[in-house]
Amino acid sequence: MIKVGIIGATGYTGLELIRLLQNHPSAKIIALCSRANVGKAVVEEFPSLIGYVDSNFIAPDDKTLFKCNVIFFATPHGVAMNSVGQFLDRGIKIIDLGADFRIKDSSEWSKWYGMAHTQNALLENAVYGLPEVYSSQIKNATLVANPGCYPTAITLALKPLLEANVIDTKSIIADCKSGVSGAGRGANIATLFCEVNDSLKPYNVNQHRHKPETQQVLTDIAGTGVDFIFTPHLIPMTRGMLASVYVDLTKNINAQELFENHYQDNKFVHILPTGIYPQTKSVKGTSNCHIGIQKSSNKLIIMAVIDNVGKGASGQAIQNMNLMFGLGEGLGLEQIGLLP
Amino acid sequence: MIKVGIIGATGYTGLELIRLLQNHPSAKIIALCSRANVGKAVVEEFPSLIGYVDSNFIAPDDKTLFKCNVIFFATPHGVAMNSVGQFLDRGIKIIDLGADFRIKDSSEWSKWYGMAHTQNALLENAVYGLPEVYSSQIKNATLVANPGCYPTAITLALKPLLEANVIDTKSIIADCKSGVSGAGRGANIATLFCEVNDSLKPYNVNQHRHKPETQQVLTDIAGTGVDFIFTPHLIPMTRGMLASVYVDLTKNINAQELFENHYQDNKFVHILPTGIYPQTKSVKGTSNCHIGIQKSSNKLIIMAVIDNVGKGASGQAIQNMNLMFGLGEGLGLEQIGLLP
Amino acid sequence: MIKVGIIGATGYTGLELIRLLQNHPSAKIIALCSRANVGKAVVEEFPSLIGYVDSNFIAPDDKTLFKCNVIFFATPHGVAMNSVGQFLDRGIKIIDLGADFRIKDSSEWSKWYGMAHTQNALLENAVYGLPEVYSSQIKNATLVANPGCYPTAITLALKPLLEANVIDTKSIIADCKSGVSGAGRGANIATLFCEVNDSLKPYNVNQHRHKPETQQVLTDIAGTGVDFIFTPHLIPMTRGMLASVYVDLTKNINAQELFENHYQDNKFVHILPTGIYPQTKSVKGTSNCHIGIQKSSNKLIIMAVIDNVGKGASGQAIQNMNLMFGLGEGLGLEQIGLLP
Amino acid sequence: MIKVGIIGATGYTGLELIRLLQNHPSAKIIALCSRANVGKAVVEEFPSLIGYVDSNFIAPDDKTLFKCNVIFFATPHGVAMNSVGQFLDRGIKIIDLGADFRIKDSSEWSKWYGMAHTQNALLENAVYGLPEVYSSQIKNATLVANPGCYPTAITLALKPLLEANVIDTKSIIADCKSGVSGAGRGANIATLFCEVNDSLKPYNVNQHRHKPETQQVLTDIAGTGVDFIFTPHLIPMTRGMLASVYVDLTKNINAQELFENHYQDNKFVHILPTGIYPQTKSVKGTSNCHIGIQKSSNKLIIMAVIDNVGKGASGQAIQNMNLMFGLGEGLGLEQIGLLP
Repeated sequence: MIKVGIIGATGYTGLELIRLLQNHPSAKIIALCSRANVGKAVVEEFPSLIGYVDSNFIAPDDKTLFKCNVIFFATPHGVAMNSVGQFLDRGIKIIDLGADFRIKDSSEWSKWYGMAHTQNALLENAVYGLPEVYSSQIKNATLVANPGCYPTAITLALKPLLEANVIDTKSIIADCKSGVSGAGRGANIATLFCEVNDSLKPYNVNQHRHKPETQQVLTDIAGTGVDFIFTPHLIPMTRGMLASVYVDLTKNINAQELFENHYQDNKFVHILPTGIYPQTKSVKGTSNCHIGIQKSSNKLIIMAVIDNVGKGASGQAIQNMNLMFGLGEGLGLEQIGLLP
Repeated sequence: MIKVGIIGATGYTGLELIRLLQNHPSAKIIALCSRANVGKAVVEEFPSLIGYVDSNFIAPDDKTLFKCNVIFFATPHGVAMNSVGQFLDRGIKIIDLGADFRIKDSSEWSKWYGMAHTQNALLENAVYGLPEVYSSQIKNATLVANPGCYPTAITLALKPLLEANVIDTKSIIADCKSGVSGAGRGANIATLFCEVNDSLKPYNVNQHRHKPETQQVLTDIAGTGVDFIFTPHLIPMTRGMLASVYVDLTKNINAQELFENHYQDNKFVHILPTGIYPQTKSVKGTSNCHIGIQKSSNKLIIMAVIDNVGKGASGQAIQNMNLMFGLGEGLGLEQIGLLP
Repeated sequence: MIKVGIIGATGYTGLELIRLLQNHPSAKIIALCSRANVGKAVVEEFPSLIGYVDSNFIAPDDKTLFKCNVIFFATPHGVAMNSVGQFLDRGIKIIDLGADFRIKDSSEWSKWYGMAHTQNALLENAVYGLPEVYSSQIKNATLVANPGCYPTAITLALKPLLEANVIDTKSIIADCKSGVSGAGRGANIATLFCEVNDSLKPYNVNQHRHKPETQQVLTDIAGTGVDFIFTPHLIPMTRGMLASVYVDLTKNINAQELFENHYQDNKFVHILPTGIYPQTKSVKGTSNCHIGIQKSSNKLIIMAVIDNVGKGASGQAIQNMNLMFGLGEGLGLEQIGLLP
Repeated sequence: MIKVGIIGATGYTGLELIRLLQNHPSAKIIALCSRANVGKAVVEEFPSLIGYVDSNFIAPDDKTLFKCNVIFFATPHGVAMNSVGQFLDRGIKIIDLGADFRIKDSSEWSKWYGMAHTQNALLENAVYGLPEVYSSQIKNATLVANPGCYPTAITLALKPLLEANVIDTKSIIADCKSGVSGAGRGANIATLFCEVNDSLKPYNVNQHRHKPETQQVLTDIAGTGVDFIFTPHLIPMTRGMLASVYVDLTKNINAQELFENHYQDNKFVHILPTGIYPQTKSVKGTSNCHIGIQKSSNKLIIMAVIDNVGKGASGQAIQNMNLMFGLGEGLGLEQIGLLP
């Protein structure tokens, strides 16, 4: 049984880790940390856990954490960076759902996150936790940087094309739509129900922090510099993300076939039949990614949906844990999308 | 032209005042105040006003306010209490959308609002601004306490019955459902989109601050002490309120007829035909109240819907302004509900 | 392995049965029937099942059904009544999620459902499948009438009080709020997104078809005739149901303690601490029922939430299956509510 | 006073026409037609109109229609085509909110709408009712083809660029997002609340019927053949539309300035300051269009929002009526967006 700790357990990704790990056959949560809620019953914060969790939140410096085999950081950027060392030194594996170890170039990181990066050595050892790209490295990793939700969806939409070298890497446009949970569980006027409900808007156009890590992984796959236009939109739904990606083809390929072959052995990525387009609801609460494809002369439209809290965050983090501990990557992640 | 000032213009009721007054034929806004946003363009805060409003927010102590004929306070409780005196002294009428002048008994007020009431003299002069009950007093008032949304809906549902003295005043149950805008525009985890969307919950059961003012007006109408069970529920919708009110009849009356007669000359209260029940959407953006009635032996169910931001707040405030200035009470408030 | 068939597999309760049974350790679906979709791939109707289900819909008269150990009818009323005989004759157990066998008095049934009841003999043998009331009968049943969602929530809210004989059985008011999925997956203007979204309304006040079956079970528990006021409301959410139930106490009891004791050994019913009220989101996708209690002099307010598609339909149907086959009643139903 | 008839008055665009015309100072509705609801009180279908409308629906062949000065057709395609002749012959002006007269090439029309076009002569005389492009022709028109919602948003986003001849007309991508009301008020599983709520999906990718009319108007503006990639998405909101349009610039221009100058005298089109992006909520219930612009090297992103029922349908139809009758184009359309 893998002994698990979660630091930052009162956010949405923390809660999703609890929900998923509670039914995981080979993992057991032994420490739920929340600096602001030490001593508070977990079920008081999250009544959905009544009957499943009967512990209290502990402090992030509680010694119980040293008994863990793996610790998930579900914390804002800047927290994990300065905390993980003590755990790694004790042989405890780390999966950071925050942004601290995602960007290899620390000065680039500093530019986007507005603070200095203090842990260059750790940065070097960190593995970018996108199993569909880096599974072999993840298996041997002790420190995994769990990707952002946008990078996950965009990369899964583009990987077969970049590897096959069949698109103009300067032509990429990613028009992305996200549920509101991506903004986290902090008090904020912009994500109040009344600000968001029954409305729609683009935000941070071409300036979203998920852009540099996406560029990094796309460039790594392509073997050449990749840039793209990135337009995130906020959608009045709780969970779900759609990346509608537009590219110019440089070769006349059968894209449907390329995608189906590419992902045929993949557990979570499913290519929809021609003419069928994905909906976010179909993957709600899961680690699945559904991809639909539409060609129009030399343009290709790739539509990829994930649950931003699932495959886009906590589900992916557990997939990484599974790989890091030699388990089947889908263990405990076999849920079917919650419809209706 | 009535010259209008609004203090607390960045909340939802402030915004609704602007929206409605902008099309009011006899009023003109000359001062929009927000302590936190002095100098900021109003349209920067509310892009919906582009093309309609081109001023900047001013401070609540800006001298422009002294040129107003009426000032609306759309502020948290405790603010109006200590500010209105200077304006009343200059002959400026006041309509307070907050709670400061709603409860006649200042010690009762202090109990519910957790602070001392400092203005007993003003309290005595304040008129409770529910035009369907107090229109004659409102016409002569200089200080109007605009009612809360729950009190408005519950009172309109009960007034014909209390006046006719046909119900057991100890039997009243008000099961109320409110849209999220009633909680205001403050940063707050509990009203984040992801906390509220696709869910439903009761809150502050029998302990909501709107209870004492409701009891006060019901008691005033009945001429005898009235108590009631009050269960507010939070609904995943932006605007709208439904009060489902249950009473025991003490006489065998034709309730449908009683309500139709009672409200026949009323501008905003509409009784639906027997067998038709109201929906909140039908009154969205308006000052209308729709009431449906269902009898079952000696029990009567009265279902009243309003827009909590309209008839439940800003629409009602303007209705009060109209009365205070000798205008038709519906002036500028003739909107039809926004469907779909 | 229990071999399962589902008739009416394209509705919301059918889909939920598939979702839950797919992860059930002791059951296996061998037949998915839809008269209107014979031969169509199940995943074409429900893309959420891609990767989990690879069969096609078959006809309700397909011989495969005779190989089942249990068949779920997720069909409109009137269908199961005339079909179950052939399966019962072959020793196949039946769980009907429709209304055909819920009301013992067939003339009462006919009055509410507008058609004659043709199977009085079956009606006599049918067991009302509310495990918290009838678990011992369910264990021996071959034909189970799965309760409606409203009756489930209302009965769980009232059972401890009726058994303890501490309320006035003529005082009951059930103000209920339901998500839209309760209306089913049929083409219908009244449940279009644009009719329902961002709005709220009562419907079928005191005339909902779930009333007589609720009265029947409440009367059975109380041992005396029970009537109640029943006001269903339609809420803009997909899943979830809240019953806010009001009763007059006839004895001065500690209601909190009564409820906690009553349900202490129950798997799915959880009593919230005093002062905490339930929200539907906490039980989304589960078979859990959360109950909060508030007392006010001699009035008691009981607030019970369930997922109308889960505990209110398909989850409860599987709970019944578990009991009928001698399994633990919670097998395969251990999901945690999907938050956020 | 313009005497107005509406045929197809029970759909969403019909209802919006009623809502807007009811407050129009120079128009008066004298005939509301619905073939399926002849004799039914209008308020029975739309309780929001209680207190505003007291007439009954009449048949589309009722002689009252001949007294109208203008008739709006809010009907499915194929209806107006064969009915308008009799009215035009009597000098009654026609505004068709359906698709019958939008596409000049009748064989192209037939291909997209699956039926023969029977009225080539009328087609020739019809004017495409997009006032920002064709106001002079509309002023003299007797038959106006009111544009679809997508064409309106996309055209307003591209017109300044096409007229200035500064983009590659083969590079255009329109990633569009629509509220559900665009699908109309017909019983349909795909637009049920539970199918759409809390989810998101693309549909009819590059094959939406609004594509050919958009191409036609863009080509007319550019003076050269224009094609574009068109991806509509269905968003869980009632009203609102966002077109996120991507183009390659062929000249190094100041796009912000170009747009501001282009639309400076326009009543309804507002260009947001650099760095501000539009939200659909800001234009809800109005005829406004808000446009935000973002440049990234030689790519330009233009984001245009409208209310699909307002500027995208009924608001625009009334704008056309105003022009056809020599009134100010904004008469009766001065509403401010309903926020929150």
